[in-house]
Amino acid sequence: MPNQFDPPSGTRDFLAAELTKRERAFGVLRSVFASYGFEPLQTPAFERVDVLLGKYGDEADKLVFKILRRGEHEASGEADLALRYDMTVPLARVAAAYGSQLPTPYKRYAMGSVWRADRPGRGRFREFTQCDIDTLGSTSPLADAEVLCAHHDATAALGLTDFKILINSRQVLSGLLEVFAVPPELGPGVLTTLDKLDKMSPSEVTGELTSRGLGDQAGVELVGVMTADDATERIRTALKPSEGGMAGLDELDRLLALTASQIPADRIAFTPGMVRGLSYYTGPIWEVVAAGVPGSIGGGGRYDHLIAQLGGPDVPATGSSLGIERILTLLPGQAGDRQGTLDVAVTVLADDLAAPSFALAAQARTVGLRASVYLGSSGKLGRQLRWAADQGARWCLIYGNAEREAGTVTVRDLVSAEQEAVRAAEVTGYLASKAAGSRG
Amino acid sequence: MPNQFDPPSGTRDFLAAELTKRERAFGVLRSVFASYGFEPLQTPAFERVDVLLGKYGDEADKLVFKILRRGEHEASGEADLALRYDMTVPLARVAAAYGSQLPTPYKRYAMGSVWRADRPGRGRFREFTQCDIDTLGSTSPLADAEVLCAHHDATAALGLTDFKILINSRQVLSGLLEVFAVPPELGPGVLTTLDKLDKMSPSEVTGELTSRGLGDQAGVELVGVMTADDATERIRTALKPSEGGMAGLDELDRLLALTASQIPADRIAFTPGMVRGLSYYTGPIWEVVAAGVPGSIGGGGRYDHLIAQLGGPDVPATGSSLGIERILTLLPGQAGDRQGTLDVAVTVLADDLAAPSFALAAQARTVGLRASVYLGSSGKLGRQLRWAADQGARWCLIYGNAEREAGTVTVRDLVSAEQEAVRAAEVTGYLASKAAGSRG
Repeated sequence: MPNQFDPPSGTRDFLAAELTKRERAFGVLRSVFASYGFEPLQTPAFERVDVLLGKYGDEADKLVFKILRRGEHEASGEADLALRYDMTVPLARVAAAYGSQLPTPYKRYAMGSVWRADRPGRGRFREFTQCDIDTLGSTSPLADAEVLCAHHDATAALGLTDFKILINSRQVLSGLLEVFAVPPELGPGVLTTLDKLDKMSPSEVTGELTSRGLGDQAGVELVGVMTADDATERIRTALKPSEGGMAGLDELDRLLALTASQIPADRIAFTPGMVRGLSYYTGPIWEVVAAGVPGSIGGGGRYDHLIAQLGGPDVPATGSSLGIERILTLLPGQAGDRQGTLDVAVTVLADDLAAPSFALAAQARTVGLRASVYLGSSGKLGRQLRWAADQGARWCLIYGNAEREAGTVTVRDLVSAEQEAVRAAEVTGYLASKAAGSRG
Repeated sequence: MPNQFDPPSGTRDFLAAELTKRERAFGVLRSVFASYGFEPLQTPAFERVDVLLGKYGDEADKLVFKILRRGEHEASGEADLALRYDMTVPLARVAAAYGSQLPTPYKRYAMGSVWRADRPGRGRFREFTQCDIDTLGSTSPLADAEVLCAHHDATAALGLTDFKILINSRQVLSGLLEVFAVPPELGPGVLTTLDKLDKMSPSEVTGELTSRGLGDQAGVELVGVMTADDATERIRTALKPSEGGMAGLDELDRLLALTASQIPADRIAFTPGMVRGLSYYTGPIWEVVAAGVPGSIGGGGRYDHLIAQLGGPDVPATGSSLGIERILTLLPGQAGDRQGTLDVAVTVLADDLAAPSFALAAQARTVGLRASVYLGSSGKLGRQLRWAADQGARWCLIYGNAEREAGTVTVRDLVSAEQEAVRAAEVTGYLASKAAGSRG
């Protein structure tokens, strides 16, 4: 039951624990992308409506959040701006706007929120993080291989192990349609149906192909080849009459050979039944799947004319998108996480002890420890120790009248519950060496 | 002259160099805030209009970007959502939504975009980053001191040195109005005028006070006290009859004493003429100014009832906002920046050399170097070396037929233009040791 203080439907507030986990993952991804020479790009949250709308069809346009004109124009009810729907339309605009200022090829990653007015549901959000890597301006298969390896390394660096990369090629798929004499006008529909081979039985798929107008025999043979145990070999044989199809196979062989130095052989496989719905792909395509997760956790491919269709220059392009929201749900908490908000909690036991307590916290920060004084109103040590524990602090520095008179600070280890009187001037060094020890 | 590929008016595309500088600054800020035990919070880019509107008055409401309802409701021209205008309204909502799940006090920082439909201008944007630290739930002056010290440390950690913190107190200002017999109904207007003492001459300010209906003599005396060389002392004397005013002075003295362990004495000063326009402050207020920069680069204060006015629980609060966009324009480039996108560039001199070249780049990445192969279509070494230099690479690995036969890789240092044949199996170790040397 949502209440008035919940965030808007389909969006989330990220409190510290969850946000820290997310930021850490984003940092890992940035570092992997940078190691491949991909540079970051950040575009505004919104674009002009003419830039954004009409690029992915009417269904997508319905999911765009549009921003009302302002001032005297607000009453018109018209929108002039719209929230970013993906990272590719802004990339096309940037390629058009900064062409010669960008390196060639332009290898960039983009990580940030996108907004879609989808019906919110379990794991489906209206505001979510998208993470894309793309290379514009290279036709080289090395560019595909590089994007794919970066995608693989990023997924692995996040801590996932049980995932697999399925690769295929638009040219192989076109070749199959050709050799099985699928009429060109049926091609896109047939591919859409074949894309369901991972969810439907072969006979269901054959049935759907027939209902699309494909001859019974062609449908049975096509599905038979694609689902055979020795599908790869049978497709190689079947494709022999198709020049384009054979070129697609060569391309995939080359991609597998290039990536072999980085992607373990059991993590990547030619998968003839993997079609990827989107029609803009022009070469190799890939999808990343994880054990126990329906759908994919990422995917991509070569899309040589899409940037021009989206309003940018006509440059060859290849790219990958990591399903970061899904991946995040698969990541275990990390044992090495620093729990809580503080390493060192400092008591404030009387008004006239506040200044030296405050200075003790400052000193602890100088050696890299997170430290703060008690900000509540209780003068009771027990209450303040409870606060220190609630913050996840490892140490509590107790500074009362007795300590002031003795020129010491009582350092209480909140894990062992042992405490020690340390000379005031030596507290910082003491904490630094204890902290170094507890990390070791 | 804007063109169709520019980002929307008042927004910016951040390409790699600028974005890297910004992200580095944000990282520094996160680390300082965490060292004080402030935890991060991220709320959605938009809120429901009823949460956002009507909180800061009509003028602010006009600057809010509103989002059209969707689907069948789009034609109504009505908005149901609006882009975040600041970080405080979302904080109030979060405090209401998660009350008992949040630590007490709740110390949080928020760093992210806010959107205001201001007229864009030099240094004024419609999408900009706001950076706030706030402590909810503590009335302790230690909470004010902590926020102020964190703000100071963050500014200093970014590399600014020539800045100053002006502090004052709402209670001191109220006390002055009281002892100079300013009628209560004139109070807010008088404070607004006094806030201009840094921009207008004393006689101009006195004139404006008179036009607001303040008696000539009261205006002259008030401005005289506030602009005197010995303003502090004269104010202390003048405030004697005001209990609230004296309490405000005590509070400021205490704040100065607490922060003395962390803020150099010449960087902070009681500044009676600093008023801060916003009426919601209830205790100490501060503003950070930098040499040569008009206006402030940050500010804050105690605002004990604002969270309730914004729809949250009635909790005491104190906080600071860093003017991060202004601060970023003041930061010098850093000499330690790694320039370019690559450390190691690898040639691809023939199709059959692509796979081993690709593997060389992968090896370089394993020792923490950013590495990539040439993705262009030229087989010419000269062209590829030029590409390597354009990427800012320190080394180019040349792997041609001669190297293949010899079992070596030619490592060219692009700074010294010297090159060396290194055994293929030893390239990674060679680069790692060179890289360690060049960092040392």
